[in-house]
Amino acid sequence: MPAPEPQNAISLPRSSESEELKKIRHTASHVMAMAVQKLFPKAQVTIGPTTESGFYYDFDLPEPLTTQDLKAIKKEMVKILKRKLPVLREEVTRGETKRRIEVIGEPYKLEILATIQEPITIYHLGNEWWDLCAGPHVENTGEINPKAVDLESVAGAYWRGDANKAQLQRIYGTAWENPAQLAEYKRRKQEALKRDHRKLGKELGLFIFSDLVGPGLPLWTPKGTILRSLLENYLKEEQIKRGYLPVVTPHIARIDLFKTSGHWQQYQEDMFPMMAEDDDSRELERGFVLKPMNCPFHIQIYQSNLRSYRELPLRLAEFGTVYRYEQSGELGGLTRVRGFTVDDSHLFVTPEQLDEEFAQVVDLILSVFKNLKLEKFKARLSFRDPTSDKYIGSEEVWSTAEGAIRRAVEKMGMEYFVAPGEAAFYGPKLDFIFEDALEREWQLGTVQVDYNLPERFNLEYVASDGFRQRPVMIHRAPFGSLERLIGILIEEYAGDFPLWLAPVQGRLLPVSDEFLPFAQEVATSMLSAGIRAEVDTSGERLGKQIRNGEKEKIPVMAVVGAKELESRTLSIRTRSSGELGTMAVGEVIERMKEAIGHRKNF
Amino acid sequence: MPAPEPQNAISLPRSSESEELKKIRHTASHVMAMAVQKLFPKAQVTIGPTTESGFYYDFDLPEPLTTQDLKAIKKEMVKILKRKLPVLREEVTRGETKRRIEVIGEPYKLEILATIQEPITIYHLGNEWWDLCAGPHVENTGEINPKAVDLESVAGAYWRGDANKAQLQRIYGTAWENPAQLAEYKRRKQEALKRDHRKLGKELGLFIFSDLVGPGLPLWTPKGTILRSLLENYLKEEQIKRGYLPVVTPHIARIDLFKTSGHWQQYQEDMFPMMAEDDDSRELERGFVLKPMNCPFHIQIYQSNLRSYRELPLRLAEFGTVYRYEQSGELGGLTRVRGFTVDDSHLFVTPEQLDEEFAQVVDLILSVFKNLKLEKFKARLSFRDPTSDKYIGSEEVWSTAEGAIRRAVEKMGMEYFVAPGEAAFYGPKLDFIFEDALEREWQLGTVQVDYNLPERFNLEYVASDGFRQRPVMIHRAPFGSLERLIGILIEEYAGDFPLWLAPVQGRLLPVSDEFLPFAQEVATSMLSAGIRAEVDTSGERLGKQIRNGEKEKIPVMAVVGAKELESRTLSIRTRSSGELGTMAVGEVIERMKEAIGHRKNF
Repeated sequence: MPAPEPQNAISLPRSSESEELKKIRHTASHVMAMAVQKLFPKAQVTIGPTTESGFYYDFDLPEPLTTQDLKAIKKEMVKILKRKLPVLREEVTRGETKRRIEVIGEPYKLEILATIQEPITIYHLGNEWWDLCAGPHVENTGEINPKAVDLESVAGAYWRGDANKAQLQRIYGTAWENPAQLAEYKRRKQEALKRDHRKLGKELGLFIFSDLVGPGLPLWTPKGTILRSLLENYLKEEQIKRGYLPVVTPHIARIDLFKTSGHWQQYQEDMFPMMAEDDDSRELERGFVLKPMNCPFHIQIYQSNLRSYRELPLRLAEFGTVYRYEQSGELGGLTRVRGFTVDDSHLFVTPEQLDEEFAQVVDLILSVFKNLKLEKFKARLSFRDPTSDKYIGSEEVWSTAEGAIRRAVEKMGMEYFVAPGEAAFYGPKLDFIFEDALEREWQLGTVQVDYNLPERFNLEYVASDGFRQRPVMIHRAPFGSLERLIGILIEEYAGDFPLWLAPVQGRLLPVSDEFLPFAQEVATSMLSAGIRAEVDTSGERLGKQIRNGEKEKIPVMAVVGAKELESRTLSIRTRSSGELGTMAVGEVIERMKEAIGHRKNF
Repeated sequence: MPAPEPQNAISLPRSSESEELKKIRHTASHVMAMAVQKLFPKAQVTIGPTTESGFYYDFDLPEPLTTQDLKAIKKEMVKILKRKLPVLREEVTRGETKRRIEVIGEPYKLEILATIQEPITIYHLGNEWWDLCAGPHVENTGEINPKAVDLESVAGAYWRGDANKAQLQRIYGTAWENPAQLAEYKRRKQEALKRDHRKLGKELGLFIFSDLVGPGLPLWTPKGTILRSLLENYLKEEQIKRGYLPVVTPHIARIDLFKTSGHWQQYQEDMFPMMAEDDDSRELERGFVLKPMNCPFHIQIYQSNLRSYRELPLRLAEFGTVYRYEQSGELGGLTRVRGFTVDDSHLFVTPEQLDEEFAQVVDLILSVFKNLKLEKFKARLSFRDPTSDKYIGSEEVWSTAEGAIRRAVEKMGMEYFVAPGEAAFYGPKLDFIFEDALEREWQLGTVQVDYNLPERFNLEYVASDGFRQRPVMIHRAPFGSLERLIGILIEEYAGDFPLWLAPVQGRLLPVSDEFLPFAQEVATSMLSAGIRAEVDTSGERLGKQIRNGEKEKIPVMAVVGAKELESRTLSIRTRSSGELGTMAVGEVIERMKEAIGHRKNF
């Protein structure tokens, strides 16, 4: 059966973009806190921000909250909303605030007060309840539709996020402009759970994690490895056609390499600790480190020969596995890992070639997205935050590089937005932000323009006039990270890989053991035709075989029984188009080959 | 022009196998030391062992030796040899030895004396010279043919190999049974220099090393990467046909993984230092390490599911890059590196499947060697040294595993020899030792039988009777190390890769710029036919273009001039068969494709 198509009948506003939604959520969170204190008079209120999907509040409560409690709180909230209490803003002095907090006896508020700046504002719900808050809020609680609000869950949290401080209870809620939005939000939440690549990855047997190996370090099973190889080989072929030259470099290097590149100075906290023989070597920084990026290695290959302008652009490409020391709390499935493979390339170009090569790279990235059916994305110009010291290189070099990117995307007529502070430490980037079927955003491909590393490594080429010149570098990765891409694809496809990417493309289901030899024969023909086929040898009844095939999301299932054997045909069920009836073996193979070749479904 | 075929008219004896040769070299080294002391009376004699190719002696000398000095020493040696001095063995007491050393005033000999056991023997050359030595020796110096002896070089060396001790001068010499052997030795030495893969690797532009990256960590240039990929893809395809399943695993893991496997206890000194956040973590061994082997990772994949006997044999395969902390003094080119890619596979089998799977693995390895034209090799049974404590597992398990290997090779009728002490720490091995065109030996493929890791990781499968059983593991790698294999192939082929492996297979040489378009057109046709072709765009004269192509050992060069353009033909020069005259473009492409497909030359 085909997976249900997501129906984004309505688009959900983002609180980062909608002032209205921000007001609703701020107020809804206050209403929730008031309700909690009504029902649990001993409850102490701490912080309560809004989030991308709603809001939460942390409470100090003597007893743990139950699901029953959440229902009661929700009911109480509805009452408060219906009373249309005015929401009033009051500006108060620090002394007055302190006095009022002491009256109600809520010491957490005193700690919060110490961290906020003037003007200090208090928001009142009627004259029954107040909290420190910067707003914004709706004018009265009646503006919020009770049917557009819900409470979602309760979880533990520490005061100030510090495990040595008081343990609090966090209630998560959500609030929207209208009930339709709430319904859509709930549908998407459920859909996201179904599509969760951690869950699907396990069910489909694509990758595993191991406690002994460590968090954030996926191990790829045979099926997942097929998926990786298909994506790698697809891009490799595209790149070979476009004149890229594959290289292979080590996963470690002496620290000196990363001192020259500046990683050691600017990027060390994202790198794994150094490997040093003893304390002395550690002190002297004489040791090895895992590479967090491939660039300095490709630069070493560039530098191994005196290059001529005739050799440029030189496009060195590597599916290079890099390691970054993410905090273990931040790790999750494939989208945040400690080891991942970058579909990396570094293009060494003359300044005159920059614009054309940049455009070619963008063209490649767009064609990759198209072939993977990733259709909605935005272009982000990730520029330097001029107030930060995390960048290397001069003002001048940065504005040249940023100018080159802006010129290129404008020339190509792309829509874009600028994000200051999102640049790499060595140069600005053009990032492609993909929006998935559930309107979630993921960063995918990236192109960077870099005048800094060529300077730091003193790169040169002999120009046509015989003089030495400095090349410009383009760093680029259409996938970004192969691991994250696969995580995103699993969620976007909801595990239903297009035929050309499916680890198992066809499965033969023999009605009984009697038909095993014919099934094996067909599978062998499919395998020789380059189709990833297998036979269900479980000996289960047909119904169970079909259910298993559906659970494993096998794109094409072919039932083999007496009728089929006699006429040398197959009864075909596909995930994309349902039952297709009986077809000759040869026709099935031809149509599957055709579909795979054109990256279409059968 | 084809590379000259090595002419091993005569086979050279090995001093490890020939008692006669050992005697000649022991005596020749004494003759050299006597000659040195005759010419340089202040010279102090230290140690002087024989080697696989001759002998050396270390001297304490006030002045550095020159090439002139070596000639004079050689001349003096010839005199001594011609005098037919008797070589006399004398057994002496420790006290008497000490007294005699004091008489001649050679303090190094006192230090040597302190390290040797009774019986203490002295060898005399006539009654003019003696040294401490265990022998064996010829009976008189006349038995050595002066025309079979030569001095080769002089180098610095430290007393006891300790940089804090006296600096000595080491003279290398060689000695053989007859002048023909010396001539053959010199020919091979010169041939080895020409074939040196470090030299050829640079000339052919296959790989580089970088001081910033560190010693023993090769970086693969585009041409070398083609070579790697061809070898990888060739073996991958063979493996897929034989039911292997590719997997991908990380390059690092928590130390716990290697404690469970036993690597941390038995193999730690070969591993890179751990990556730990701080001293505490280091103390507690809470950190990550680079993998020195892939086995524990494949075991994690095996263990991620409860396995049934129906799934076995399960053959997990990975071109896994591992890192070993070789001493930097031991690193040389590709044959001894710190990071290398193992064409690794781990087969999980039932005890009943072991013999058959083992035989299948050997069959694969032999077919790989055959396709690579590596024809001379020996099978070594690398067993445990029962007196050493560097192994894990019980006596019983080891004899089962060693028995299984011996049984398998006997059943297959292979010739073999046993090498105690050469086993892996977890199990015995069958190693294939390749002998190259210069009769040098290199270890290539390996197969190992392992009952220990399944025990340590508590591996199981559900047998057909429903009970849990322990699988056996086979570790195997036909290439061993991709890096070392490429090093060996470069030397064996003397840089003349067979057509299917050559990074550039065909080069078009236009007689002048006028013929560039036709050359480009032919190159494009070749590329679309899957032939790695390129055009010489240097604009050099034809003679120079041909010389460059020969230096780069391009298998097929095709000259393009007026005659060729008119008749749409190419004038072909191949490295394997010389000039082949004029041929139609289509024919050249067909014949090249044919040759590549059959791994033959054109």
